[in-house]
Amino acid sequence: MTPAAPESVRPHGVFAPVVTPFDAQRAPDAGRLARHCRWLVEHGVGLAVFGTNSEGNSLSVAEKIALLDALAENGLPPPRMMPGTGCCAFTDSVALTQHAVRLGCAGVLMLPPFYYKGVSDEGLFRSYAEIIERVGNDRLRVYLYHIPPVSQIPISLGLIERLLEAFPGVIAGIKDSSGDWKNTRAMLERFQPRGFDVFAGSETFLLATLRAGGAGCITATGNVNPGPIADLAAHWDDADADAKQSALDRVRAAFQSFPMIPALKRAIAHHSGDAGWASVRPPLVELSDAQAAALLEALEAADHAMPGVSARV
Amino acid sequence: MTPAAPESVRPHGVFAPVVTPFDAQRAPDAGRLARHCRWLVEHGVGLAVFGTNSEGNSLSVAEKIALLDALAENGLPPPRMMPGTGCCAFTDSVALTQHAVRLGCAGVLMLPPFYYKGVSDEGLFRSYAEIIERVGNDRLRVYLYHIPPVSQIPISLGLIERLLEAFPGVIAGIKDSSGDWKNTRAMLERFQPRGFDVFAGSETFLLATLRAGGAGCITATGNVNPGPIADLAAHWDDADADAKQSALDRVRAAFQSFPMIPALKRAIAHHSGDAGWASVRPPLVELSDAQAAALLEALEAADHAMPGVSARV
Repeated sequence: MTPAAPESVRPHGVFAPVVTPFDAQRAPDAGRLARHCRWLVEHGVGLAVFGTNSEGNSLSVAEKIALLDALAENGLPPPRMMPGTGCCAFTDSVALTQHAVRLGCAGVLMLPPFYYKGVSDEGLFRSYAEIIERVGNDRLRVYLYHIPPVSQIPISLGLIERLLEAFPGVIAGIKDSSGDWKNTRAMLERFQPRGFDVFAGSETFLLATLRAGGAGCITATGNVNPGPIADLAAHWDDADADAKQSALDRVRAAFQSFPMIPALKRAIAHHSGDAGWASVRPPLVELSDAQAAALLEALEAADHAMPGVSARV
Repeated sequence: MTPAAPESVRPHGVFAPVVTPFDAQRAPDAGRLARHCRWLVEHGVGLAVFGTNSEGNSLSVAEKIALLDALAENGLPPPRMMPGTGCCAFTDSVALTQHAVRLGCAGVLMLPPFYYKGVSDEGLFRSYAEIIERVGNDRLRVYLYHIPPVSQIPISLGLIERLLEAFPGVIAGIKDSSGDWKNTRAMLERFQPRGFDVFAGSETFLLATLRAGGAGCITATGNVNPGPIADLAAHWDDADADAKQSALDRVRAAFQSFPMIPALKRAIAHHSGDAGWASVRPPLVELSDAQAAALLEALEAADHAMPGVSARV
């Protein structure tokens, strides 16, 4: 295996788990997705497509491969992409990861297999090893995805240590969506100095992560507030950084009373004037009109705007 | 929609979530699987392939479709099959369910989508409805799969009620793997009289389920103890039924100190003389030799045997 990519091309800063628009038949809408991705990139935010907030696990592997291809064909740059590729079956994870690497994606964000619960670190090590060895490509960069509230499968510090030793350069970093700053700090202290890039799972911890030497954040609200979050990531050492963090926190707080994915999509539907954006796949359910009104009111109170977003750009 | 199938062809009695053998490359081994399925059917046990204990969620949809076809081509009868078809993405569930229905399977055992946690009954109703409507085949029989310890997504009595009203005849029953007899009893009392077949998730509750009017059980240890479990299901009204239940309980207890799936496979490897049967896919891990020795000792103490099982039958 080759050493990690040079610092200049390693993903850093802010990524959004890009929400996935659906058409009237609830099929993924590649055109809408490409437009939204372009708007995000223009505002300094990278594309962590097929994450939790992308309803990535409500899409088949074939649907995800078709969307990746459509994004590339629409001119979105693969070096700005970090697709989620971790499935329950390693054969699925291998197929999707291979496709992402061949396309030139910056890295992949990889959930552990999440159906079987209470599995051992040995079993999780074998899961990641099986995929890395089968993909067998020196350009592969794996970002581990630690999100125990949803996956129920934590990625322990011991597992990271073992993976880093076995696959140096390939194991490139982690998204920590535990919501537990003590855990993020432990990863930052122990692994970031060894070139393992720690991304916070929310902009709530963006400033703290960057001050501790971390790489940035991968955050749901990157979908609706990309410019200000990317601005803090770019200027975190400035004197007004704490004030900027507080402004980000106010926007995020406006979402906290609502189910995140339907709320993000409803906000995009509102600001883009494209009602179809609100659609979700089951088991999720769209916001009610009453919820939507309360969300928009809360966002207005937080001075939230989405300049330039449009379904028809 | 047509009414439910006549009682005579409705699945009942004992099914096993058939363990899935792998070859040296950890690809599903259709030949070994067909031989094991034949042995199960000959001992009175139906084929709930692609269940939790089948490592069904460690197989891709394409792998599962290929295995179903191979079983049919090898002469295993689809009316004895109840494949697991519930995936996270409804597009996957639809593809697999359609294939099972076209093949003539007795029914499908359908997990709810299990990645997103804390979802509403409304969202779960929409999940099942979306699949049933897209499959759009009157011969479809859906058995719900309630296994909250693993899926973390319970199927409530209210959800069953709603599904039964919306899709009479299609919603055919449930496997209750909650391990909570109070829950199984509530389902038996409320829904079994309406033709909704309740299967216990373990033979531990087989006699109690049959005495309460239920359909039978779908049980992991059906893989290794099929004859005696099927015998109790066939003769549960006999005077010696409680003694037979106790004998089943002793065999099951021998497995309880070990991870179930690797233990089942190791027992089959031992009795069939085919060491390759022990292989599992990550995130599971095979039993150690010490665990295997303890398991075999416990099984011997419980008078367990697997007459006629062989990889080379």
